[in-house]
Amino acid sequence: MNSIKILENKTITDVPFFKASGVHCGLKKLKQDLCVIYSEKEAVAAATFTKNKVKAAPVLLNMKTIENHNIQAIVANSGNANACTGDAGYKDAILMAELTAKELNLSSSEVLVASTGVIGQPLPFDKVENGIKMACETLSSEGGEDAGKAIMTTDTFLKKFTIEFQVGGKKSMMSAIAKGSGMIHPNMGTMLSFIVTDTNISKSMLNKALKESVEDSYNMVSVDGDTSTNDMVIVLANGSSENKLIDCENQDYEDFKTALHFLNVELSKMIAKDGEGATKLLEVIVNNAKTLEDAKICSKAVITSSLVKSAFFGADANWGRIICALGYSGADLNVNAINIFFSNEMGNIQICKDGGNIGFDETLAKKILEEEKITITINLNDGVFSATAWGCDLTYDYVKINGSYRS
Amino acid sequence: MNSIKILENKTITDVPFFKASGVHCGLKKLKQDLCVIYSEKEAVAAATFTKNKVKAAPVLLNMKTIENHNIQAIVANSGNANACTGDAGYKDAILMAELTAKELNLSSSEVLVASTGVIGQPLPFDKVENGIKMACETLSSEGGEDAGKAIMTTDTFLKKFTIEFQVGGKKSMMSAIAKGSGMIHPNMGTMLSFIVTDTNISKSMLNKALKESVEDSYNMVSVDGDTSTNDMVIVLANGSSENKLIDCENQDYEDFKTALHFLNVELSKMIAKDGEGATKLLEVIVNNAKTLEDAKICSKAVITSSLVKSAFFGADANWGRIICALGYSGADLNVNAINIFFSNEMGNIQICKDGGNIGFDETLAKKILEEEKITITINLNDGVFSATAWGCDLTYDYVKINGSYRS
Repeated sequence: MNSIKILENKTITDVPFFKASGVHCGLKKLKQDLCVIYSEKEAVAAATFTKNKVKAAPVLLNMKTIENHNIQAIVANSGNANACTGDAGYKDAILMAELTAKELNLSSSEVLVASTGVIGQPLPFDKVENGIKMACETLSSEGGEDAGKAIMTTDTFLKKFTIEFQVGGKKSMMSAIAKGSGMIHPNMGTMLSFIVTDTNISKSMLNKALKESVEDSYNMVSVDGDTSTNDMVIVLANGSSENKLIDCENQDYEDFKTALHFLNVELSKMIAKDGEGATKLLEVIVNNAKTLEDAKICSKAVITSSLVKSAFFGADANWGRIICALGYSGADLNVNAINIFFSNEMGNIQICKDGGNIGFDETLAKKILEEEKITITINLNDGVFSATAWGCDLTYDYVKINGSYRS
Repeated sequence: MNSIKILENKTITDVPFFKASGVHCGLKKLKQDLCVIYSEKEAVAAATFTKNKVKAAPVLLNMKTIENHNIQAIVANSGNANACTGDAGYKDAILMAELTAKELNLSSSEVLVASTGVIGQPLPFDKVENGIKMACETLSSEGGEDAGKAIMTTDTFLKKFTIEFQVGGKKSMMSAIAKGSGMIHPNMGTMLSFIVTDTNISKSMLNKALKESVEDSYNMVSVDGDTSTNDMVIVLANGSSENKLIDCENQDYEDFKTALHFLNVELSKMIAKDGEGATKLLEVIVNNAKTLEDAKICSKAVITSSLVKSAFFGADANWGRIICALGYSGADLNVNAINIFFSNEMGNIQICKDGGNIGFDETLAKKILEEEKITITINLNDGVFSATAWGCDLTYDYVKINGSYRS
């Protein structure tokens, strides 16, 4: 059994041989808006990218760069997505990699680039250039928090998570920073999440572990049904831990994958909880589906429904909307076998039995629904497959934030 | 050329030999909540129903009833959807048809049933029974408005539309009432829309015309992406006009279909405009797509995006969100060929050229976006197919209405 320990006060720069920084270069009004993450040792990388046909320039560039064996740095900015910016935008992304590489004495093919913010505006490159210089100069073992802040847009809290785990009897660390908030409905790729680890693992095994984990973590989050042009998850592994190189699907690989997935699920929940305007974290668990695909489709249909999300905002136990979403999801299901439950620390209540009304205790339901985290468990009673999706309620503030995002 | 004349002050009971009524029987607190529409002459009917796997009891019943040749009445209630109500709910739907049939001296197989409102609550049948009696007793040639009001839920205005047109040199009339507002994202079937006409047309031709029209009218509307359990469109044709029976795809059929589609599009726009909490009608026209399917997918992706809808609420010309939605829609497209325009009576402005920024006049854009109706025209420059979808903005009031729908 792989025991995973959560390290509350640690961040990405506590992982051996990783440094980072976050600076303010003027892309946002006041706060940090550019960061660099750097591995002092050679590192292998894996990444997943948005499946949106409209891909931001950094995504297009990284899809090539990621083929290289050694990747030692990530440079990322917020405040401008560098998406729909044409050839000029693509050249800007290349320039970001080149400038960072020059400062760090790397080749530009060893640097990944990310951007997040408004779509369709040219990057004010003088600011970016200045930011990259400042960020490279201030790289430190204490810079993890600043780096995390520099990728935030409408996020209300910093998303970071650090764990310690064992691989082949040796201690490994893994830590990540992520941003979420709006335009969150990842499809294969995802929002920004940068993960670093000292585990000794081959590039191909790292890639395999990431791809598998992303499907059941970030890709099961939805804030608003909109898949961004800029989503990406990157993991850098610099192999400075003393574990024997993981280069096949052995027990060490399983332990590493378990740790990586644990971390990714925690970050996914943070992203869902901090969805734009959100007051509640919703977790939708679908059990006993006919196929894994049906389980996933069902959980995502419920977490994506505006009507379901509004009802949770109002603490209204309107289960009819949940069953309606299951019905139009496209999944294969037996409507008359569906049971639905709400639960959290206030209690556990069944609100629908055999696809129909059960006459539940409205007072207890209200108590459960007024909490900040609610688990909706749906039993389809039609097979053996399960899936979990995470999201949030739909609130006045979502509309407020998105009615004037550019201004 | 088929000339269609709009009759502003007419309604369904102005069509020869149709009577209707709307009464209050206590399913809603104060307003009309049950209606009957009755053809004094024998009539053929066509209908489309929701494709949600969870189908309300009246939908399940009508799917059988519609096979009958003669259909002379529709009984519909608001305030309760009679969905997810099991065998008891199905028996209630049958009973609604039987009671109506008895009052009107028809067979229950000649009566269609519809319900709209909260899902999962048993019908208070004593109220419904009383309502059916009242409604049948008060049927009149002036009852069209009351019938329209009786199917409203969160609708803010009555949706009705009446036209006069020529078929084979003879005058025909067609009129409809509809309800929309929430849980509006029809898939094949649609929200409630009841259409009556005196045109002399065979059941099979009527069915064909309806099916074709619905695809490009109601099915291109989205308020919130949620496909209801209760959607249906019904058309009754009692053949009292003097036109020669339409029983094949001749010019008369084309003229009839043109008129039917004109009416359905007008009702679709009304439904979009009166989406829950909406302040604006959005019309998304996609031109020059590679296939018809691509055009439809693109227009629906844009009209369904919460981020796009919020930006229109805030009169923010955030075209990046439109191109992002096109990108994740799944349609085949050339991102670098996309042009986007906003227009209405205030002007016409291009806001995106070749998939990128064009540096438009923000003041003019704001003027256009502050109007109540906005047309978004998207040229994909990649083929010859077009499609139009209708929707509305996402507002605080949508969240307010849906945070406490059941109470």
